[in-house]
Amino acid sequence: MGVVVQDIKRADPDLIRRLGAAGVATVHEAQERTGLMAAHMRPIQQDLALAGSAVTISAPPGDNWMIHVAIEQLQPGDVLVLAPTAPCDMGYFGDLLATSAQARGCHALIIDAGVRDTCDLRQMKFGVWSTAISAQGTVKETLGSVNVPVVCAGALVNPGDIIVADDDGVCVVPRASAAEVMEKTQTRLDAEEAKRQRLTAGELGLDIYDMRPRLAEKGLKYV
Amino acid sequence: MGVVVQDIKRADPDLIRRLGAAGVATVHEAQERTGLMAAHMRPIQQDLALAGSAVTISAPPGDNWMIHVAIEQLQPGDVLVLAPTAPCDMGYFGDLLATSAQARGCHALIIDAGVRDTCDLRQMKFGVWSTAISAQGTVKETLGSVNVPVVCAGALVNPGDIIVADDDGVCVVPRASAAEVMEKTQTRLDAEEAKRQRLTAGELGLDIYDMRPRLAEKGLKYV
Amino acid sequence: MGVVVQDIKRADPDLIRRLGAAGVATVHEAQERTGLMAAHMRPIQQDLALAGSAVTISAPPGDNWMIHVAIEQLQPGDVLVLAPTAPCDMGYFGDLLATSAQARGCHALIIDAGVRDTCDLRQMKFGVWSTAISAQGTVKETLGSVNVPVVCAGALVNPGDIIVADDDGVCVVPRASAAEVMEKTQTRLDAEEAKRQRLTAGELGLDIYDMRPRLAEKGLKYV
Amino acid sequence: MGVVVQDIKRADPDLIRRLGAAGVATVHEAQERTGLMAAHMRPIQQDLALAGSAVTISAPPGDNWMIHVAIEQLQPGDVLVLAPTAPCDMGYFGDLLATSAQARGCHALIIDAGVRDTCDLRQMKFGVWSTAISAQGTVKETLGSVNVPVVCAGALVNPGDIIVADDDGVCVVPRASAAEVMEKTQTRLDAEEAKRQRLTAGELGLDIYDMRPRLAEKGLKYV
Amino acid sequence: MGVVVQDIKRADPDLIRRLGAAGVATVHEAQERTGLMAAHMRPIQQDLALAGSAVTISAPPGDNWMIHVAIEQLQPGDVLVLAPTAPCDMGYFGDLLATSAQARGCHALIIDAGVRDTCDLRQMKFGVWSTAISAQGTVKETLGSVNVPVVCAGALVNPGDIIVADDDGVCVVPRASAAEVMEKTQTRLDAEEAKRQRLTAGELGLDIYDMRPRLAEKGLKYV
Amino acid sequence: MGVVVQDIKRADPDLIRRLGAAGVATVHEAQERTGLMAAHMRPIQQDLALAGSAVTISAPPGDNWMIHVAIEQLQPGDVLVLAPTAPCDMGYFGDLLATSAQARGCHALIIDAGVRDTCDLRQMKFGVWSTAISAQGTVKETLGSVNVPVVCAGALVNPGDIIVADDDGVCVVPRASAAEVMEKTQTRLDAEEAKRQRLTAGELGLDIYDMRPRLAEKGLKYV
Repeated sequence: MGVVVQDIKRADPDLIRRLGAAGVATVHEAQERTGLMAAHMRPIQQDLALAGSAVTISAPPGDNWMIHVAIEQLQPGDVLVLAPTAPCDMGYFGDLLATSAQARGCHALIIDAGVRDTCDLRQMKFGVWSTAISAQGTVKETLGSVNVPVVCAGALVNPGDIIVADDDGVCVVPRASAAEVMEKTQTRLDAEEAKRQRLTAGELGLDIYDMRPRLAEKGLKYV
Repeated sequence: MGVVVQDIKRADPDLIRRLGAAGVATVHEAQERTGLMAAHMRPIQQDLALAGSAVTISAPPGDNWMIHVAIEQLQPGDVLVLAPTAPCDMGYFGDLLATSAQARGCHALIIDAGVRDTCDLRQMKFGVWSTAISAQGTVKETLGSVNVPVVCAGALVNPGDIIVADDDGVCVVPRASAAEVMEKTQTRLDAEEAKRQRLTAGELGLDIYDMRPRLAEKGLKYV
Repeated sequence: MGVVVQDIKRADPDLIRRLGAAGVATVHEAQERTGLMAAHMRPIQQDLALAGSAVTISAPPGDNWMIHVAIEQLQPGDVLVLAPTAPCDMGYFGDLLATSAQARGCHALIIDAGVRDTCDLRQMKFGVWSTAISAQGTVKETLGSVNVPVVCAGALVNPGDIIVADDDGVCVVPRASAAEVMEKTQTRLDAEEAKRQRLTAGELGLDIYDMRPRLAEKGLKYV
Repeated sequence: MGVVVQDIKRADPDLIRRLGAAGVATVHEAQERTGLMAAHMRPIQQDLALAGSAVTISAPPGDNWMIHVAIEQLQPGDVLVLAPTAPCDMGYFGDLLATSAQARGCHALIIDAGVRDTCDLRQMKFGVWSTAISAQGTVKETLGSVNVPVVCAGALVNPGDIIVADDDGVCVVPRASAAEVMEKTQTRLDAEEAKRQRLTAGELGLDIYDMRPRLAEKGLKYV
Repeated sequence: MGVVVQDIKRADPDLIRRLGAAGVATVHEAQERTGLMAAHMRPIQQDLALAGSAVTISAPPGDNWMIHVAIEQLQPGDVLVLAPTAPCDMGYFGDLLATSAQARGCHALIIDAGVRDTCDLRQMKFGVWSTAISAQGTVKETLGSVNVPVVCAGALVNPGDIIVADDDGVCVVPRASAAEVMEKTQTRLDAEEAKRQRLTAGELGLDIYDMRPRLAEKGLKYV
Repeated sequence: MGVVVQDIKRADPDLIRRLGAAGVATVHEAQERTGLMAAHMRPIQQDLALAGSAVTISAPPGDNWMIHVAIEQLQPGDVLVLAPTAPCDMGYFGDLLATSAQARGCHALIIDAGVRDTCDLRQMKFGVWSTAISAQGTVKETLGSVNVPVVCAGALVNPGDIIVADDDGVCVVPRASAAEVMEKTQTRLDAEEAKRQRLTAGELGLDIYDMRPRLAEKGLKYV
């Protein structure tokens, strides 16, 4: 506790942009179903999809002091990721902190806790995925750390990892494997597009994926 | 397990349409408050109301194989109803399956589990009521059944039953009693309209329903 | 149980209007973080903020009889506040009751239980903060009380207290302290505006609030 | 609603006794993993296992009137099964009702709601599986039904079905298939005993079940 | 915040003892079903019933400083009641604080949050009703108050009120009405004993309470 | 996925034994409040405390195949730690698997999912901390991994880390820091014993920890 790592590595911006465009479900599949945060992480807005480099915050429950410390470390395109050290639904973050983060080019927060001023945040186009919405304020008394590894909503996040977030939730792509994951993601996107056309035309998944023999072998009976 | 019933009976389309237009709250009252799914079944969209014939799926937790099997059984106006055999918040269903279902004239899914690609599903106007939103994918390894009776979110659903769904939740109307339920529903709708006019004009429910004598008899005191 | 208090005092309408405009988060801070309802009280609509005088209802679980009684006590600008005497997610309130309440100038309901006809309620611009949405109806068999003190979602509400509600939740301001709370609220609003400008310009909270010395004293290390 | 079925069929007492001795996990497996109530049904006591014939109660939320009606229908060896028509954690049942049920030879209650006097119930050796413990009392105002089919904690229960309950939860065995299920249960019990001896001796499941080839085929790598 | 009320009034010790012996369910009924804490308040021990005078603590989430302050205010027979100002499952209280409280004659804690060292607490015969068990420690940074009114698990508690707690939960009896509540409680206890004997002898509640005519009038049908 | 790491390092057995004897709350404090699993991890038994080396399992939801694979990797004193890759309350583990694990000297399971045969497990003295109890069985269809890093109930666990578990929950001590953590733990144990004696004698924490000046400085008022 009480450490701020200042110099973190970030992934290639174009790679990050492409992962964000692909979306959580496809990226999660592409990295073999790892890195997904728990389903109780919900967006406060609808129809927003993005990706960015994680600046991580390990904060005590009910104490948002470290967010101020973290904002100084932000670079354009970063995403704040806050994991409290014990479960907490208090409102760590509101429109003033968002204003400060936006002034440094950060446009999103991932937080396994609560936020407030949600109407303002939506108007500011500041994206938030959280586990609660609460006006309950926090204190500034106890140190946490910035840019250390954290477990956020069940997913391990290292500083500089790529956060992909959309209406389906939040997925973490380790920085080191970003290029490989994007390659596999692209392969899936291409394959999905081909399947979508066949399905739209009325072909059945049963036939496209050749499922009938295996279903019969397992004993499926039509009556 | 492992059974697909191919030939199910469906209710009269006009009856189904009228039940959908009446809405969940009124239909539920009209059938003596039976058939309502649990309140944790929430829509992923707002202001969508519909009804259709249930094509039911009993699926293992985390296994969406049977959805492909069920889609082949769909007819225009059907609604997919999936009940996992153990609680599960994984994303069984996304835009590709919705594309396939829509190609057969099905425009809604009721699922006591999770879905993904929710932004796409809303854009496709594919209605979903679910207990979770999650990018977590499923496998295709274990058989379930299609068009067998299922308990979904606490409500018994037989294949061919009418599903009524709107912003308030999901209600199941047994096929055999659909006509009778619609008749009672219409009676309620008519009565509600009359009451609405009197209430709008400022009359009190206390007077319209003649509640004052019974309240006094129970001992209500005004101070 | 079984008491209706008819003559309650209300706060100054202008004070109420100003508290509503300030919003839940700021008002809650201004009264030293007291009076906030639990975070599971969620609005059924988005981007609506309001305030009003509480007309309170203590109702048995699953029994909405007292709402009819309470409506007679409403005056323009009032907000209904219903606390069941045991946890309950049933739909106590729908479009007919809202029509009746609106006819008397009441435009919002705060309820630690469920509501129904939510699509209609949004179209009517009737604001609702609730803990559930459910078509499940209630009975009219057992007395409760109107305009007695209630604990709603963890907050004590006395009749005539000011309810402030927006996308962040619901806060209760005791009638007697409304003027003092509004004064402190205004001070906060003014201070926030000044800070917002400095933060927008890129100044850091670390500097604006002079946090660096205390962080160093607590042992924060930059690496 | 408002129906009491007086003449229900029950399964053979010896069959019921043997199913109870086999326990929930084994019986549930033996009937192909159907009939299990949700995991939030918890016993108020430890180390009690039993089985009996279901006398079912469909009761309004917060109303325990029908329990009195149901008790008259009890025969020795019966188990009361109560499903509220909407979620409710109130205390429907306490020591007086248990005394009355015991006087008729019933020694257990399965309830998807709350109970009270739990210390007394344990001392009386009256078995309870419930979803809540609560001193909150109920009313006697609205009719329900006795010995109709109910959905209890996600499982369909017909009157006269066999309820098997132990520390692991509650499972429902349809009366008609009880003999067949017991036969399969016995087969499993015998097989389990043989496996238990081999496992105790240190043999591995990997070898007993011949899993190694299939694991290798799926691609498992030892490093 | 930041206030310690030193001189609180307590109820008559004999009255407190008798309320504790009567138990939560009966006392709660006797005071017309008011004052019950939410059902998620669970004991860490079994078969312990007690009553005492409330010494209340309003504490910030994750901050147990005020417990030390409160302990100085304890007198023999008191019960500590802690309500955090926002939901929190952290471990506010363990064996050292219990040792200190016991040294002053206090033998129980009611807390809408977490405790730790639960094995030790049971061995010390220190009674605890809490909403969580957690080893997560708290800080000592922010003031709260002692012996002010608090809302704990949904129930209003004034300092000096009587806390009654057993396996069924926790009930609050206002000090001013303790004698009256005990009188009504005794009446219920006497009546219950008489009913218990009749029920044990096999009489039915249907007859004892003369329910048959009213059931018939409501339309109950035996088939 | 699909990897089994066979050769993991374990900590010194005496160190492990001493950490287990110190208990979760003290060890968690000693390592600066890190490594604690979420509070919903509950023991199925009471008054059992232990420690061991983690053999980790990353398993698909509803699939317990990898437990068989993991058991082959067990050495005396190991603790199985299973984290599903998506939330799941199914019963992954019962008495047969426990028999097999015990045959290899493993006496405990930590699982962020369900277990069954809990009565048998208690009789076998096999310790379990889980998030659910459920008879619902799992399949053996999809690979997971053994002895890879996992996030279990919010805590990162590397194979060979020390698991400390008791009635308060579960804490993870990284293998590399075990000696240092035990040293700090011993310091705390010694200090606690001294404090316990002073508190037992009636001294107040306010005085022992010299809190009065800081409380006064923060503004605490006695009235």
